[in-house]
Amino acid sequence: MARIKIINDPVYGFISIPYGIILDLIDHPYFQRLRRISQLGLSSYIYPGATHTRFHHALGAYHLMTKALSTLEAKGVLLSQEEKEAASIAILLHDLGHGPFSHVLESALIPVEHEELTLLLMEELNNEFAGKLSLAITIFKNEYHKKYLYQLVSSQLDMDRLDYLTRDSFYTGVSEGIIGYDRIIQMMNVYDNQLVIEEKALFSIEKFLTARKIMYWQVYMHKASLSSEIMLTALLKAIKSNFSEIPISSGINYFLRNQNNINNKKITYEILSHFVKLDDTDVWTLVKSVITSPNNFVSYLAKGLIDRQLLKVEIKNVQTDGDVIDKMRLQCVNLLGFTQDEAKLIIKGGTLEMSTYNQSFDEIFVNSREKALIPLSEVLDLHHFSQNRLRYFISKPKELS
Amino acid sequence: MARIKIINDPVYGFISIPYGIILDLIDHPYFQRLRRISQLGLSSYIYPGATHTRFHHALGAYHLMTKALSTLEAKGVLLSQEEKEAASIAILLHDLGHGPFSHVLESALIPVEHEELTLLLMEELNNEFAGKLSLAITIFKNEYHKKYLYQLVSSQLDMDRLDYLTRDSFYTGVSEGIIGYDRIIQMMNVYDNQLVIEEKALFSIEKFLTARKIMYWQVYMHKASLSSEIMLTALLKAIKSNFSEIPISSGINYFLRNQNNINNKKITYEILSHFVKLDDTDVWTLVKSVITSPNNFVSYLAKGLIDRQLLKVEIKNVQTDGDVIDKMRLQCVNLLGFTQDEAKLIIKGGTLEMSTYNQSFDEIFVNSREKALIPLSEVLDLHHFSQNRLRYFISKPKELS
Amino acid sequence: MARIKIINDPVYGFISIPYGIILDLIDHPYFQRLRRISQLGLSSYIYPGATHTRFHHALGAYHLMTKALSTLEAKGVLLSQEEKEAASIAILLHDLGHGPFSHVLESALIPVEHEELTLLLMEELNNEFAGKLSLAITIFKNEYHKKYLYQLVSSQLDMDRLDYLTRDSFYTGVSEGIIGYDRIIQMMNVYDNQLVIEEKALFSIEKFLTARKIMYWQVYMHKASLSSEIMLTALLKAIKSNFSEIPISSGINYFLRNQNNINNKKITYEILSHFVKLDDTDVWTLVKSVITSPNNFVSYLAKGLIDRQLLKVEIKNVQTDGDVIDKMRLQCVNLLGFTQDEAKLIIKGGTLEMSTYNQSFDEIFVNSREKALIPLSEVLDLHHFSQNRLRYFISKPKELS
Amino acid sequence: MARIKIINDPVYGFISIPYGIILDLIDHPYFQRLRRISQLGLSSYIYPGATHTRFHHALGAYHLMTKALSTLEAKGVLLSQEEKEAASIAILLHDLGHGPFSHVLESALIPVEHEELTLLLMEELNNEFAGKLSLAITIFKNEYHKKYLYQLVSSQLDMDRLDYLTRDSFYTGVSEGIIGYDRIIQMMNVYDNQLVIEEKALFSIEKFLTARKIMYWQVYMHKASLSSEIMLTALLKAIKSNFSEIPISSGINYFLRNQNNINNKKITYEILSHFVKLDDTDVWTLVKSVITSPNNFVSYLAKGLIDRQLLKVEIKNVQTDGDVIDKMRLQCVNLLGFTQDEAKLIIKGGTLEMSTYNQSFDEIFVNSREKALIPLSEVLDLHHFSQNRLRYFISKPKELS
Repeated sequence: MARIKIINDPVYGFISIPYGIILDLIDHPYFQRLRRISQLGLSSYIYPGATHTRFHHALGAYHLMTKALSTLEAKGVLLSQEEKEAASIAILLHDLGHGPFSHVLESALIPVEHEELTLLLMEELNNEFAGKLSLAITIFKNEYHKKYLYQLVSSQLDMDRLDYLTRDSFYTGVSEGIIGYDRIIQMMNVYDNQLVIEEKALFSIEKFLTARKIMYWQVYMHKASLSSEIMLTALLKAIKSNFSEIPISSGINYFLRNQNNINNKKITYEILSHFVKLDDTDVWTLVKSVITSPNNFVSYLAKGLIDRQLLKVEIKNVQTDGDVIDKMRLQCVNLLGFTQDEAKLIIKGGTLEMSTYNQSFDEIFVNSREKALIPLSEVLDLHHFSQNRLRYFISKPKELS
Repeated sequence: MARIKIINDPVYGFISIPYGIILDLIDHPYFQRLRRISQLGLSSYIYPGATHTRFHHALGAYHLMTKALSTLEAKGVLLSQEEKEAASIAILLHDLGHGPFSHVLESALIPVEHEELTLLLMEELNNEFAGKLSLAITIFKNEYHKKYLYQLVSSQLDMDRLDYLTRDSFYTGVSEGIIGYDRIIQMMNVYDNQLVIEEKALFSIEKFLTARKIMYWQVYMHKASLSSEIMLTALLKAIKSNFSEIPISSGINYFLRNQNNINNKKITYEILSHFVKLDDTDVWTLVKSVITSPNNFVSYLAKGLIDRQLLKVEIKNVQTDGDVIDKMRLQCVNLLGFTQDEAKLIIKGGTLEMSTYNQSFDEIFVNSREKALIPLSEVLDLHHFSQNRLRYFISKPKELS
Repeated sequence: MARIKIINDPVYGFISIPYGIILDLIDHPYFQRLRRISQLGLSSYIYPGATHTRFHHALGAYHLMTKALSTLEAKGVLLSQEEKEAASIAILLHDLGHGPFSHVLESALIPVEHEELTLLLMEELNNEFAGKLSLAITIFKNEYHKKYLYQLVSSQLDMDRLDYLTRDSFYTGVSEGIIGYDRIIQMMNVYDNQLVIEEKALFSIEKFLTARKIMYWQVYMHKASLSSEIMLTALLKAIKSNFSEIPISSGINYFLRNQNNINNKKITYEILSHFVKLDDTDVWTLVKSVITSPNNFVSYLAKGLIDRQLLKVEIKNVQTDGDVIDKMRLQCVNLLGFTQDEAKLIIKGGTLEMSTYNQSFDEIFVNSREKALIPLSEVLDLHHFSQNRLRYFISKPKELS
Repeated sequence: MARIKIINDPVYGFISIPYGIILDLIDHPYFQRLRRISQLGLSSYIYPGATHTRFHHALGAYHLMTKALSTLEAKGVLLSQEEKEAASIAILLHDLGHGPFSHVLESALIPVEHEELTLLLMEELNNEFAGKLSLAITIFKNEYHKKYLYQLVSSQLDMDRLDYLTRDSFYTGVSEGIIGYDRIIQMMNVYDNQLVIEEKALFSIEKFLTARKIMYWQVYMHKASLSSEIMLTALLKAIKSNFSEIPISSGINYFLRNQNNINNKKITYEILSHFVKLDDTDVWTLVKSVITSPNNFVSYLAKGLIDRQLLKVEIKNVQTDGDVIDKMRLQCVNLLGFTQDEAKLIIKGGTLEMSTYNQSFDEIFVNSREKALIPLSEVLDLHHFSQNRLRYFISKPKELS
């Protein structure tokens, strides 16, 4: 009799985990660490419900993968038990390489993308589990001949996106982000080794793209999220350039101290062994420990982050003039007593752009009764999804008029 | 034109916060700290969705209070603007005195109840806000003549319970805990200065009591929650008795170092000033910092907590025999190399009891068309809610057979 | 490639129907007729959302059956394709014998229980479908050796109850009636040919019984539901005893005209062929056609039903005295000009009793790690569910003081 | 003490109705009749959950109106009690003029638009209620100086649309149609007597327009809905041209018999008095009564409608060629024995077009911090919402190859 562990999930009701390799991987410290990595970084400062974690997202994406595989099988796609398990492992572990606050500190601590770290950690686990992850890794690297298995893990309509849009809109309470994930999965099929979507689901796809665009602007690029990200990055830079500031000996010190070694982009085993101990709590502890720093700039940022006194961010359709920015920095130096370099770290202009759908690469394919493999851009007017919408932000201390 | 801040809440949709004292209190560091106190401590180890915070619960309870006050006003209860604001402040701040992991460490760090700390912090804020919290404090202490305002803050049917049952069942995904909070509030009224409930809502009350009982056993007293609480408490004790173990200088050190001063039950301003800096991240950092401790027992617990390798807990209808426990402790000493005293900290028996409804104190009153102020116990068969259900637990390392 | 028809369901998201016998049965006129039979009769007069139909309930119960069978299979219960199909057919068709307004007119038009009519119609269909329903009928009659298949169709925890409680609470908006149907199904198992429930689900069962009790009193026995039922039954009786009143020639006439033939309890093919044409619209058309009747009593009831001017119903803990009732009837005769016999039809006392759980017959069985097949009544305090709660109602025209 | 009637609504939780004119209007037979008018006509043939009624929709729109008025008041818009009541009455009664199956038979029975009938019925009620509806009627006719009150009743963002999109997506289970009605309402304001929306709500508006487009194609213009509408209209025409066919004497006969009188577009009191008795049940009874008609065409359609054996409808991007249609009709005549004229009634081509947003008339206005009253088309790319998407349908009996 197959044993199953049932986990309550407010989003999907229940997630069933079979005993065996899947449950063993979930129980592994690498995966348990994701419990302490928030999914949306500092977005809970704007959406207080959004305290969910990478751990929960990974379980959710795994759950959707099992649904998708069942649907494909019910439609006659032949899949071996090994292939199903491998695709499930690939999605379960796809975020293993995320550092503290997910994307926020991705470049600040380690200069490689989280996908690369994920792959390194999957290989570590493959050694530990005697090669049982080999096929999962092959799929994850898109080197398996059944390309649709990779597409379920990573594409413009993968289980990752379906779960994070669903889960992020659920926990933020931004109901505009809700998508019909179940209908989209029910309408998936395979044709010529490609993941395709049945024509009936076109409206669900359109809704999905609209929801993605809305979540991007309303949640992921929210002014206050940008603000706290700029603050956190500036604080880390200020601490790094002034290392004696760090009174605590948390796991994060290794990364602040060894920037030069890390920066040569070769991830050694030593770096990795420190990475897997790092999580959000290290960052919070660091921030709290420098609140009373004699360095004015450091304490300003640390206190601001802890007490949610954020920089003011504006998002505009036009770029702020360089002169205006210079004037603000000068005002900041005079008013708050920061150095010119410090002012540059927090009075910053930048661009935001988002293409909800990429027409030039890896299109979603649609099957209709008359024709197979029609690129989505041929059947839906995607003009407003695929063009980049460019916007500009500018941040400054709220003390400035 | 009144300005209002709107906060998305996945549970109620939106929470409206008026600019002024309410928003100022929310923006205060004392309240912002609640963002870093999880509502359910380590329950997210069992229910991964349950990552919500005291901050969110306090906002939710505030929201329900505004609904309850509107309902009472619509039924003709006369309330001044000042009274409504004071009742709202009282519920908003009711959990200010919670320490890390909410209830888990309540006694381990500071030997007073969180309500007492709440009151001290409210008085601090009252000084800071020039006496604007005086009426709120009077209500909170049940010294105001309109007793029903206190009952909305603290009673067997208060806004606290209505929100936490709703919110905890929402975030855990335990749908059995859902209550009809809106119907219960709609059916509230005031009679003879008492909060009463209209007879029509009797079934909602019964459902509420059932839900509370279920949440108690299924969530609050879940075996794995008990287990992680025992582990965390044991770890703190082991560290305290061996203080040189603590390599980090986080806010928690003050409490570990100054137990004697704190234990005389007089909360000084100094203690309070350290308390308001303390949150969950301090505990996590402490645990992570002792993973590599040379002390076998300390590292066993720390590693177990971080990697979710928990003690085994059983809940039974009969108490485990003292001899059996002694044998287990001996086995533990031999097998894991802990001392006898250490074994006592993790191989523990205890009782769980729960009275969902207290008939002997502060009954809920019901108004029917024929009769006012009928105690709930006269109209509902509460036999199975009011009797204490006694159960016994026993914990032990999972390495023991 | 297996073809599947997907039906949107606001309650469960999607219901999947395989092409073949299941879809053919759904497409059959006998089943399509259930689209015109409301699930809750006149309850939409109190809960305007409750306009759902027997058709939808039958699909929902079918959906839960497929979930339950999958769960049992995943736990190692061996089931043939034929057995799964038969159990699915049995639950799909279990309400085929319901007449207009479901229970309301059950006895008024045809003096047999709807289960008997269901069986007759299933046998008709079995002829039509060349014996393909034989096993389904065997299960429906509890004559199959795998008793648990019958228990999934009809028991104290069958798919019928799980769906109707879920669906009725969803459509009425009575959130107190929500049950954890998915958790209950996940916790089902088979032991010794009996359907059993795992001990972990005990709280879900307790919640389910509470919900059932609440729905009984708050929805199924709501005063206004009782009232409209009494009015409809009285109207039919008045029309029957005065047949020349019926100006329309709808399908219902056959039943009003042929009471004597029908009353001998032998359901002929002729009766059945009229029955399968009968639905709610026939009753509404009848009521509307007699609004302008010269018969005062008939028009009073018809107009009342159409315009929702209902009899006043009171539910009490004590029986109304016979003298009081007599006086009311006299007052009614004088005030409204009805005959004494007519007054008796609408000024009526009666009893309501409900046992949420039956301990003496067909108990729910629980499996724990230590012991199998424990009757539910041994592990849960069912005292308040199993005792009959007796209440009394009395109806009268609202014109009476 | 103000008395309030609370109605459960699965969509919004509760709807509160004050005693007085609002409740009296709801209790009036004109309004009660809407209980028997389905909101979506025959769409429940595709979405079995969609059995909701105009009655419920009208209550829902009323509920949203009270929310919108509260929001405006909280933002400082001055409204008298009389104005609030009048706006509430206007939205409550806005659908009074709907005939059976809502839009389906709008032109087939009475050649005036339902808005005109609504106005006539509101005037009837105004007489009956001694002029208490005068202001409501003024608002409904857009003759009141506070234009925004009319816009809440009828505009591109009125309470009607907000409720029907929310309610229809809820009951069909088409989650793609869910809109953020609460956020949209929270973001409403008044500027220069115009209803405006705050800039923050732009994404909610975009989602609302997407949802509307999706609901149009996926629900309102679903192939099977079109099919059943064509069948019902064809059946009525066939019966009208052959009046002796109608064996029943339901309220619908008046309209079939008196087409000439009615067609002169003057709605007399006599016509109105028959109209207010007409509802869905009359149509069903008519259809059922002609199932056994000797007229082949009539019985084909009636049986098809009752048993859900629908015409086949295809929706295409190009128009079907006239020759092809002629051939199909000929085939139909030969195969099914219908006349050429009858074939024309069911083998029909037609166009479907939908503009989700009308840029040329009555734009939605947006207020930003910098600028007031910006037309929506200036801040959102509405290209894909405002252009008409033209599609073509063709229906035919499924017996044709």
